[in-house]
Amino acid sequence: MRVEGKDVRPIWLSEDGAAVCVIDQRMLPHEFVVLDLRTVDDVLFAIGELVVRGAPLIGITGAWGVYLAVCRTQSDGIDDESLHRECGRLKAARPTAVNLAWAVDRVLSVVRQARSGSERREAARTEAAAIAEEEAENCRKIGEWGVSIVEEISKRKNENTVHLLTHCNAGWLATIEWGTATAPIYAAFDRGIDIHVWVDETRPLNQGLRLTAWELGAYGVPHTVITDNAGGHLMQHGMVDLVIVGTDRTTYTGDVANKIGTYLKALAARDNGVPFYVALPSSTFDWRLRDGVAEIPIEERDPDEVRYVQGRDGKRTTRVLIPPAGSPARNDAFDVTPARLVTGFITERGICRASEEDIRRLFPEKRREP
Amino acid sequence: MRVEGKDVRPIWLSEDGAAVCVIDQRMLPHEFVVLDLRTVDDVLFAIGELVVRGAPLIGITGAWGVYLAVCRTQSDGIDDESLHRECGRLKAARPTAVNLAWAVDRVLSVVRQARSGSERREAARTEAAAIAEEEAENCRKIGEWGVSIVEEISKRKNENTVHLLTHCNAGWLATIEWGTATAPIYAAFDRGIDIHVWVDETRPLNQGLRLTAWELGAYGVPHTVITDNAGGHLMQHGMVDLVIVGTDRTTYTGDVANKIGTYLKALAARDNGVPFYVALPSSTFDWRLRDGVAEIPIEERDPDEVRYVQGRDGKRTTRVLIPPAGSPARNDAFDVTPARLVTGFITERGICRASEEDIRRLFPEKRREP
Repeated sequence: MRVEGKDVRPIWLSEDGAAVCVIDQRMLPHEFVVLDLRTVDDVLFAIGELVVRGAPLIGITGAWGVYLAVCRTQSDGIDDESLHRECGRLKAARPTAVNLAWAVDRVLSVVRQARSGSERREAARTEAAAIAEEEAENCRKIGEWGVSIVEEISKRKNENTVHLLTHCNAGWLATIEWGTATAPIYAAFDRGIDIHVWVDETRPLNQGLRLTAWELGAYGVPHTVITDNAGGHLMQHGMVDLVIVGTDRTTYTGDVANKIGTYLKALAARDNGVPFYVALPSSTFDWRLRDGVAEIPIEERDPDEVRYVQGRDGKRTTRVLIPPAGSPARNDAFDVTPARLVTGFITERGICRASEEDIRRLFPEKRREP
Repeated sequence: MRVEGKDVRPIWLSEDGAAVCVIDQRMLPHEFVVLDLRTVDDVLFAIGELVVRGAPLIGITGAWGVYLAVCRTQSDGIDDESLHRECGRLKAARPTAVNLAWAVDRVLSVVRQARSGSERREAARTEAAAIAEEEAENCRKIGEWGVSIVEEISKRKNENTVHLLTHCNAGWLATIEWGTATAPIYAAFDRGIDIHVWVDETRPLNQGLRLTAWELGAYGVPHTVITDNAGGHLMQHGMVDLVIVGTDRTTYTGDVANKIGTYLKALAARDNGVPFYVALPSSTFDWRLRDGVAEIPIEERDPDEVRYVQGRDGKRTTRVLIPPAGSPARNDAFDVTPARLVTGFITERGICRASEEDIRRLFPEKRREP
């Protein structure tokens, strides 16, 4: 995506191939910092500490992590046992996004077919890059399919402003290009449709306030930031035409794990007759799980993410403590929106309802895995 | 309420009667600051800037504001026209809490029956103090009625921990003693019932994280702070037995205006079969309004309350900017939960369902006003 006249992605391989470069998303929007990841430990840090985040980007980062593992030695590369161990560590870096295991396994499988160290490095590099390009293309297609929904609402409103609401950041920063939830937004904006986006701040880590607002602002998309508490009120008063969110894992039955608070917005959308769409590449479907609330693992993160807020104080980035020092906190990072509250999915293959039947119609080659 | 061994209220008259003293709730929990209010302008500042907040306390502060208006001159007091104007300004200090106009009008009506300046001062003082004492007693009764709900759940759970969830601060800081939503919590704790409270942080101004957590901690009540996004997830997983919130204005039909985000929690409670109660003194009922969503005025406050967060950085209290400097924000302070989502009201006269019929059964003397 273009930022201040430059094309930029959240992750890329350095020219010499020795490092995976990532935008440090912890520091946005007030500082633009790039980190070099050179080891699997670097990748684990980047994923665990949310230097990179968002299900598709976590997958791509994991894929590059396998490449770094394969590059680890100057000799013929690491042995199979070590490689498996490193891939296991990568897959365990975060529990909820299913793309991580999917991407790591995909690179691992091509690496295992290669022989020499240099062949393995090349295979890993090619596959990781291919995953990134495929996800970019998937997001572009999600935008093409999704824009039809925005266009239809625009027509129904006689081309008055279409107000969208999104939660967290499912933008290009969470993927590689275009984003998932934001792809239809960028596509609609590019087509000249009059749109405006309500951006949920998305506590505790404020990915909406920090990242989505920054992305939309850089692209020139009209938007307004709101607290996570506000969306229901806006819907009650007819100020939201459409909700689009991303997802970290979606069951083949249509249950959607996404950033904590998504479920509350889905309930409000249902209560007010507002369409609630989830945008995702097929890599985010979990073909093994039937019951999202019962089966999707929900990451519980450091309670200090709730107790502290990071922001800009004058010219420095700092964090402030809000509650009394002695008050404990709990920090579930995701929740699950049951399929019954989802109007539809926007995928790279088209739009479908949130039912097993409709999902399988789009992805007939996918089998329910054990 | 006792804090660190001292009895304290959020508002009191100074010994010489020249100032109304209030805890500056903007600075809690990290600093305990008391401000002296000496003029109507001071009171307007305190109410407008949330030095004091919470519907019952706003009412009590407005009542003391009339007293300060009456005290304004050393002579026979201010003339009727000026007094009316000052009361009009007080009533307009914030739009949503109905207690403000109710309390100001009540003090004004007794002042107008007095003759000399000194009689008027004494009348205003007596009436403002009476309102404060009545609201304290109302809250105590709310606790007595409400504790039965907690007791019943405790019995049903074989005395395992009862998990309550509350939004914003409807504690003694928002009233005068005991609070509204917290009164049943304190009463249950005093009776030795095993309870634990999930405290919604309540963005933008974090009254839950800052004030409710501080209150509960000071009283020794087990509690955990969570983001506003988390409640739905906790309810889905059976971790909330009961929701109790306060209200800023409730229609005679049972629609509840309360801090923004309350509606989302009510939706989640309904979706998961969790009882959702609203605790209020009768001063918070609006006997004129039928349709809460359409008719209750919702205050829109400074967008910077969304864009900045205040907290503690080392030894100083400061605020940090979170979104990009150029991103606009919107800040609706309240939302309305329709009566259909409310399990019941806990009032000083008992518990009733959220219907006009049941509300009028408890308050038969109240007429629908024009």
